[in-house]
Amino acid sequence: MFATRINRLTSSLVRDILAAASLPGIISFAGGLPASEALFKADQNVLSQLPDDIWQYGQTEGEPALRQQVALRAKAMGIDCTAAQVLIVNGSQQGIDLVSKLMVSEGTRILTESPTYLAALQVFRLFGGEFVGTQQDEQGILPEALAGCDARLAYLVPTFQNPTGRCYSKERRQALAEAFDRHSMLVFEDDPYRDLAFDSPAPEPIVSQLNKALWVYQGSFSKTLAPGLRLGYLIMHPELMLPLTRLKQAADLHSNRLSQAIVAQVLADGSLDRHVSRILPLYRQKRDFMHACLQRHLADKAHWEKPVGGLFFWLTLHAQQDTMLLMRTALAAGLAIMPGAAFDPVPQPSATLRLNFSHASMAQIEQGVCLLAKLLD
Amino acid sequence: MFATRINRLTSSLVRDILAAASLPGIISFAGGLPASEALFKADQNVLSQLPDDIWQYGQTEGEPALRQQVALRAKAMGIDCTAAQVLIVNGSQQGIDLVSKLMVSEGTRILTESPTYLAALQVFRLFGGEFVGTQQDEQGILPEALAGCDARLAYLVPTFQNPTGRCYSKERRQALAEAFDRHSMLVFEDDPYRDLAFDSPAPEPIVSQLNKALWVYQGSFSKTLAPGLRLGYLIMHPELMLPLTRLKQAADLHSNRLSQAIVAQVLADGSLDRHVSRILPLYRQKRDFMHACLQRHLADKAHWEKPVGGLFFWLTLHAQQDTMLLMRTALAAGLAIMPGAAFDPVPQPSATLRLNFSHASMAQIEQGVCLLAKLLD
Repeated sequence: MFATRINRLTSSLVRDILAAASLPGIISFAGGLPASEALFKADQNVLSQLPDDIWQYGQTEGEPALRQQVALRAKAMGIDCTAAQVLIVNGSQQGIDLVSKLMVSEGTRILTESPTYLAALQVFRLFGGEFVGTQQDEQGILPEALAGCDARLAYLVPTFQNPTGRCYSKERRQALAEAFDRHSMLVFEDDPYRDLAFDSPAPEPIVSQLNKALWVYQGSFSKTLAPGLRLGYLIMHPELMLPLTRLKQAADLHSNRLSQAIVAQVLADGSLDRHVSRILPLYRQKRDFMHACLQRHLADKAHWEKPVGGLFFWLTLHAQQDTMLLMRTALAAGLAIMPGAAFDPVPQPSATLRLNFSHASMAQIEQGVCLLAKLLD
Repeated sequence: MFATRINRLTSSLVRDILAAASLPGIISFAGGLPASEALFKADQNVLSQLPDDIWQYGQTEGEPALRQQVALRAKAMGIDCTAAQVLIVNGSQQGIDLVSKLMVSEGTRILTESPTYLAALQVFRLFGGEFVGTQQDEQGILPEALAGCDARLAYLVPTFQNPTGRCYSKERRQALAEAFDRHSMLVFEDDPYRDLAFDSPAPEPIVSQLNKALWVYQGSFSKTLAPGLRLGYLIMHPELMLPLTRLKQAADLHSNRLSQAIVAQVLADGSLDRHVSRILPLYRQKRDFMHACLQRHLADKAHWEKPVGGLFFWLTLHAQQDTMLLMRTALAAGLAIMPGAAFDPVPQPSATLRLNFSHASMAQIEQGVCLLAKLLD
């Protein structure tokens, strides 16, 4: 009846967890929602300055003023680019949809970290992508992993990764960039957490060090400003601009112009940087607090690294316990967590879990970690 | 290098025409843009009432208040539905992308009018769809056309169609609904122009008369309010809601919440209806004026029906002239038109062309039609 790709639409497990997590009375460590108090809410001052022409159809590539601002910021982080290489999208999720349309058919081999961002896995699977096993260490993918690898596309989240919080070193990035150049593999670097650096700034993106391989770099305003704006961007090798712009046009003509006008203004007047400076201490405090709670209640039951950026703790239980079952028990007890298997390119029972620390209140963090410890007893 | 679907991305002809049409000094009858003076521009009154929670992630299906309003309006036009059957999308283009993902793979047969909406053809082609030839008359597809037809999906624009302006009669809709039920073919009814009825209201949608066939009905706020809002909606048979919601989630999580909040408010307080009452006389006047200009300058060179709704005139030249060539000559002379072949499921040289009357000023309409007549001499 339906196209065969519909059979590959992942089960609603994750939707179910997230839906349950939003019920009143549930403490949620499950999603990746910014704290309510960290959201940038455009005020009347911003809204009263919206340009008069935003109500008409706009350009597929995005608003020129916003593309210009994005290119300026990208150059400051080391990516040699111009506004002509910028394509505005409806948040990172659409960027993944567009790059999948560009690259992924039935059986297309994709190199990813394992674990990695689950919604990217969903989209790659939808289009028929298959994942290649790869060698990794605690820093991420090893350059040696590319030798003999038949992947056409590498999807990486090298900076404060979702779900592990991991950040690739400068040296690893350099070595990987050389390997990608050598193997002419297209690199899709997804980088939504870069600005949420709690201890020291992240090294320059991998794509900034490529000389030969094609590349797409993705950024988002969901974690720094507000997800409701539904706005992110792709910056890419010039050769990819025409097909990706056509794919964007076929997907929805162009992104919302109100949001684009708001974000262009917020970037131009420095509000984004001021906002990030305001929310960093809040997130740092929550991270430190969850770390302390975990040490107090879970030190004998799990191990983890204190994340240096992003929104998540990644725990490995000492016991060989399937966290998919733990997730169900926890939900019944009023706590939502994400089982590690959800982030597996090839899902298998796992003793890992992801805990988000940005959305819950301090009181909920304490209560939730306590509850988790009890459930593990 | 790229996925094979990229080879099917339609050439940039249409993008080129539309890009050229927006250059200063060009009179454009090419696009489907609302008149600037007909755009609904949310004022400070509306913007100051935006709910405080729209900056966070929202529901994939759309804002509950907006879905409720959409369902109410759909019921008033004859579609028996509830808000649970409504999925908010980023304008009609995204609805076409999602339905294509649901239904269309390499070789999937699709029944369409010929000519039909060119951007729908582009998306169906991108996913590998093929078009079945069909029997039509001046009212649209004939119910007999379904006998022995191997299409899995019918895409129809029965009301003030783009590009022909044609509107199916009540009787034809009824007969077609019975035929679709008999052949269990999924009906995708695209209805962005319904509210732009200049002479009398349009008959009820075809999907409102289905008893058995699966269906998706699509509406848009681009033609009645403002395209920059990038907002439309799908209403569907309950069985389709789960897969289409998952596809929407994979595409961009959810639609822009600012636009959704604005439109929910505009529907609830009656502003949409008041706005449509204001713009109808303007569009009627422009239609009448272009009709008069065409009669004055082109009566001996082409024939056409005066459209009873929508935004376009559809002309057939008396001479066997390829309008693809005419389009290039016209563009060089400062006039943008759309050649009929662009709307053909199976493009072939054609003496037809589409003229948009909503965007150009009255002076430009007169000047443009005059110029077109000269070029045809």
